[in-house]
Amino acid sequence: MKNDLDRLMLERDLDAILISGPAQHNPAMVYMTGGGHVSSADLIKKRGEAPILFCNPMERDEAAKSGLTTKNLAEYNFLDLLKDADGDYQLATARRYQLMLSECGVVSGNIALYGRSEIGSSYAIFTALQREMPSLTLVGEVNNSVLMLARMTKDQVEIEHIRKMGQITTQVVGLVADYITSHAVRNDTVVKPDGQPLTVGDVKSRINLWLSERGAENPEDTIFAIGSDAGVPHSSGNPRDPLKLGQTIVFDIYPCEAGGGYYYDFTRTWCLGYAPDEVLALYETVFSAYDHITGQLKAGAPFKNYQDMACELFSAQGHPTIRENPNTQAGYVHSLGHGIGLNVHERPWNGASSDEFDCLVPGTVFTIEPGLYYPEKGMGVRLEDSFWVQPDGKIQVLANYPLDLVLPVKTG
Amino acid sequence: MKNDLDRLMLERDLDAILISGPAQHNPAMVYMTGGGHVSSADLIKKRGEAPILFCNPMERDEAAKSGLTTKNLAEYNFLDLLKDADGDYQLATARRYQLMLSECGVVSGNIALYGRSEIGSSYAIFTALQREMPSLTLVGEVNNSVLMLARMTKDQVEIEHIRKMGQITTQVVGLVADYITSHAVRNDTVVKPDGQPLTVGDVKSRINLWLSERGAENPEDTIFAIGSDAGVPHSSGNPRDPLKLGQTIVFDIYPCEAGGGYYYDFTRTWCLGYAPDEVLALYETVFSAYDHITGQLKAGAPFKNYQDMACELFSAQGHPTIRENPNTQAGYVHSLGHGIGLNVHERPWNGASSDEFDCLVPGTVFTIEPGLYYPEKGMGVRLEDSFWVQPDGKIQVLANYPLDLVLPVKTG
Repeated sequence: MKNDLDRLMLERDLDAILISGPAQHNPAMVYMTGGGHVSSADLIKKRGEAPILFCNPMERDEAAKSGLTTKNLAEYNFLDLLKDADGDYQLATARRYQLMLSECGVVSGNIALYGRSEIGSSYAIFTALQREMPSLTLVGEVNNSVLMLARMTKDQVEIEHIRKMGQITTQVVGLVADYITSHAVRNDTVVKPDGQPLTVGDVKSRINLWLSERGAENPEDTIFAIGSDAGVPHSSGNPRDPLKLGQTIVFDIYPCEAGGGYYYDFTRTWCLGYAPDEVLALYETVFSAYDHITGQLKAGAPFKNYQDMACELFSAQGHPTIRENPNTQAGYVHSLGHGIGLNVHERPWNGASSDEFDCLVPGTVFTIEPGLYYPEKGMGVRLEDSFWVQPDGKIQVLANYPLDLVLPVKTG
Repeated sequence: MKNDLDRLMLERDLDAILISGPAQHNPAMVYMTGGGHVSSADLIKKRGEAPILFCNPMERDEAAKSGLTTKNLAEYNFLDLLKDADGDYQLATARRYQLMLSECGVVSGNIALYGRSEIGSSYAIFTALQREMPSLTLVGEVNNSVLMLARMTKDQVEIEHIRKMGQITTQVVGLVADYITSHAVRNDTVVKPDGQPLTVGDVKSRINLWLSERGAENPEDTIFAIGSDAGVPHSSGNPRDPLKLGQTIVFDIYPCEAGGGYYYDFTRTWCLGYAPDEVLALYETVFSAYDHITGQLKAGAPFKNYQDMACELFSAQGHPTIRENPNTQAGYVHSLGHGIGLNVHERPWNGASSDEFDCLVPGTVFTIEPGLYYPEKGMGVRLEDSFWVQPDGKIQVLANYPLDLVLPVKTG
């Protein structure tokens, strides 16, 4: 949680953090500011002190909504800095950071860099800053970020944001089910009143609309993949594909609050009208893994244990898994889930890169999403819900929705 | 344009480029791949050769839609690399890049970095890569990126994407005008059927809905700012503000194609019912600057000339401008416009940082957006359209919409 940040900084010997980039669709900045229309900003926080937000004067009122102390970036005369640097833009920008940091009393020690921005320009600016301020060590944390560790556990306000997104998500999923089943079927294909097939594209445009009406957005798209597309976990679905009966549809929806806030993550697998035996068997295997694993979840347990459990369950039934072959493309091909928050994927992890921090401690919010995929057979099944470990250690799903495979359609 | 890239790379002595990050909401990657649900990718392009796209196997079909040669990231066994690096995640990742680059024959010379990602982790990974591959020079271009120069001029396909977004944008603006004027007015306030005031928030939720219905999104929000908020260029508007007659509303809308594609950028200033004399005078000053400047646009001219023109026009009428005081917060406080494309702001520039490349050459698409702001007086006016320099040098606005200030309302 945010109030763990100073302790975590101390443990890692970080004297300050610097976050850069816009306040929207930039999780680190959203976390510290609450978002808002601040298109270009920098935030400096010394350990044990409140953050300071630097912004352009045009965006001063938006920046002030964060409740943080703000400073005006225009007070550092960039044209003068550029002149002094003989037109070297990266050096001038680095020197502006040097002035900002010095003003905040950050002139030595370790400072961690956060925020989402252009890789090339930030690489150039921060290598220049490192040269200009040799007594300061710029730290980039790849897999073990202090901020991500703080963000792994959510406070009550964050939980309510995520829960609200869970409600919106399941509402929209229900609307999609109603929308599809309200259509007629001809020759095993769902058709519109004009006789044309209802397509993946038709469904996706409704999803976007219904999310938007509810103050949500899906910046990373939605997976609504039928048939062989359903057999490849991240194929998002071909807009022109017609909805046909008896084929698996993997419907994975992961919207966030408009402007880049908290995410939810949710998957159901549907078969319209009926499920062929082979699909039903695959579904039952995934369902029983889902059921078994979600029944075993314990506060404090290493998240990786459950990935091991999933691999064992699937392996015992003859499915290839990534435990034996990290490059397998059929069977169980991904990890069991991930944390969610201001990133759709964040700690805790349970895949290859998970470590001792990735435990289901109180405050974590994570997905459980076992799945089996056979692209050559044109089928895939995944079931996913998002769970919260309460302060008292109880674990609850944040939004309820039936897990049924078959969606009945009007065949009359 | 994309086919200028090899020439530009040669001029800058770049042997290769490396783009990293997702294929959505990541302009550099969208430019080279066309977008799609590829959440984590790397693209390497040697000068004179076709790009190679590295992706996770789960996303292989989405990556293949780019039409590029794709490679499977899972073939570099990351767990082995991590073990060899004694668990050092940034070193292991850097070494995976080293393998990928070596396979592409990029082992020496200059390689430029692009893409949008986490600042800290990319800084750590690329400083490690630079240490591992001392014969290669990693180049981060801050203000003078080869890719941004190529992207400054658009081909016909790109123009049609932007034109389409222009049509969507002006359609939505028209719907907003109809929506507001369909309401009744009581005590100088626009009211809903239940007698409650119509608010900025009500209008914004309609905007989101209408954009979504048309396959567009507004990841950076929309400015719909009334009264004193209109006096601060980037204040996006308070959702709870009621729409009152006789106050300036700055309506700046800059949506993009869903998934992070091409943008449009458009602003009108409205006064509901009537305009007070002071507002009318301010509007007329801005309108005549808009009218004069857009009539003077010439293919090939430095974009900065028109910013000078705007400063002179406003200054001559007694308005403070940023030319005299870069930190002014009243009068003319920003630059005259900017290029648009896969970024809402890109080259050509006409502000302090513009250089010899920022000319209105054929293929450029740019905004002209003069404005005057008096936050203390509770008013601001901005007018903005987006223009294209055709291959024959003629300049056309990409979407037409009336520039009127007063929006008549039902006062009966």
